[in-house]
Amino acid sequence: MDLCVIGTLAYDSIETPFGSAQDALGGSATYIATSASYFTQPVGVVGVVGGDFSSEALAFLQSRGVDISGVEIKTDGRTFRWAGRYHHDLNQRDTLDTQLNVLAEFDPVIPESMRNARFVCLGNIAPALQSKVLDQMIAPEFIVCDTMNFWIEGAFDDLRLVLARVDCLIINDSEARLMTNEPNLMRAARMIMQMGPHILIIKKGEHGALLFTSEGIFSAPAFPLENIFDPTGAGDTFAGGFIGYLARQGEITESNLRQAVVVGSAMASFCVEKFSVDALKDLTQEKIRERIQAFKHLSHFEHEEISIANPAA
Amino acid sequence: MDLCVIGTLAYDSIETPFGSAQDALGGSATYIATSASYFTQPVGVVGVVGGDFSSEALAFLQSRGVDISGVEIKTDGRTFRWAGRYHHDLNQRDTLDTQLNVLAEFDPVIPESMRNARFVCLGNIAPALQSKVLDQMIAPEFIVCDTMNFWIEGAFDDLRLVLARVDCLIINDSEARLMTNEPNLMRAARMIMQMGPHILIIKKGEHGALLFTSEGIFSAPAFPLENIFDPTGAGDTFAGGFIGYLARQGEITESNLRQAVVVGSAMASFCVEKFSVDALKDLTQEKIRERIQAFKHLSHFEHEEISIANPAA
Repeated sequence: MDLCVIGTLAYDSIETPFGSAQDALGGSATYIATSASYFTQPVGVVGVVGGDFSSEALAFLQSRGVDISGVEIKTDGRTFRWAGRYHHDLNQRDTLDTQLNVLAEFDPVIPESMRNARFVCLGNIAPALQSKVLDQMIAPEFIVCDTMNFWIEGAFDDLRLVLARVDCLIINDSEARLMTNEPNLMRAARMIMQMGPHILIIKKGEHGALLFTSEGIFSAPAFPLENIFDPTGAGDTFAGGFIGYLARQGEITESNLRQAVVVGSAMASFCVEKFSVDALKDLTQEKIRERIQAFKHLSHFEHEEISIANPAA
Repeated sequence: MDLCVIGTLAYDSIETPFGSAQDALGGSATYIATSASYFTQPVGVVGVVGGDFSSEALAFLQSRGVDISGVEIKTDGRTFRWAGRYHHDLNQRDTLDTQLNVLAEFDPVIPESMRNARFVCLGNIAPALQSKVLDQMIAPEFIVCDTMNFWIEGAFDDLRLVLARVDCLIINDSEARLMTNEPNLMRAARMIMQMGPHILIIKKGEHGALLFTSEGIFSAPAFPLENIFDPTGAGDTFAGGFIGYLARQGEITESNLRQAVVVGSAMASFCVEKFSVDALKDLTQEKIRERIQAFKHLSHFEHEEISIANPAA
């Protein structure tokens, strides 16, 4: 198996200024795997759901080439639920309700078939569980880790243990500052990379993303969207596109990493167009290619022709 | 004359977390003209100073190929003074004191030699004065306008009259939202362009800049600086590099505009390294070229090689 994803499968209830959705399919593993499935299949998912998780949702994941043999179905339990409301500008959201349900007792067991996955994506979940997953993997080539302010603030020691073992961390800018108490993102990045990840991605929402590697910094633009409908899952969709594309390429090079960031950004730009994974359901290779082309046009300038000659002459 | 700049010449007193400066040379016209002078000379400046404006400062401007014949020296008056303090993260600043002094009665008179300037930069100054300048210019080819929240809030009708007459507006993201009451920058941009400017630049500080033209959107990254010392004048320096480069190129094309944004960003990245215009005093063509090269490396990715083939195959 090329890619194994650990994360949540959930039902999200979302309020935005433009509409709302009740118990829509969500969860970090759902978004990561769906996004990644456009670049690599099968995608193995490890997670837990309750007896109330619909067969339609499971069928959807399978239709995307997701191997759900690692999804534990606790028939007498309820699926993880999250409810949130976005502010008018969509940049901020309030959590209205979190019901861990079956997630509270989740003890991840990686199926034999997935233990030698070459690429591992540790979706946003308790760092202690991320460590447990790593304990069961057999020499993965590349490990991507996602986390959030909740764990940075409440389980930082656990998180440090995970960071020492991963290749790439994906966080957003406020999380980078929270982790380091350093307002300057460049300095914050250096401090975080000293904790373990030799590759760091700092997402900046509507401002794009920064990729830090040993070769320098890549600044990817954000796709200029006029109609952001629901930002839920955009970050996970980014991570899925990123690691899915890398799993497809196979080799971790500076060039592949930069392309993977653009691919992840392109996938995230689709995600926000609709609720849940709806915008990721019927993508075609052509649509994705067009979106990536649009990213190129967004950032391209003719460098070779910029001439700086003596103006006093 | 290729470029005429209207704006302020000032003495700034700055407090940053890293140091402070008293009565340092500043003002929008100072920064714009100094920056532009690396790409085009002479640069005509129109402004007003008091008898306390030092001859060293005037000599410095002349040494940069700035034509100061349009700078009115009111010997019995005092130069415009501004005092500000930057917050710890340098993104926010408080104005501690503003003394308009000779600026209060400023009535700009454009010297004959500058009235047919091909390129005009209306630096940040009262919109009513920007209009007076335009009234005196003879068919300029390209007019760039800068403004700030102070005028958007206090002189919006005057500003609308200016906007209807300019080609390009440069503002920052909070000003774009203030002008339109629209949190989405893409929609805000469209609304602003309907007011007159067919080219709009929205600067986003540490997040780079967006260029809007009839051909689409260009997203330029911000230079990743670890040591931002004093942000004062960065926006004006950007404007100067932008219009200076365009004046040098002569033609307003999409390609030149994108390059000009990168050039402006490169110049701004130098400005913030020191107080006042100090970092702009001894730049060389080589240093500027290297910085632009760094911008290219910052945003470049290999587009043609991103292959999106069917992963289920």
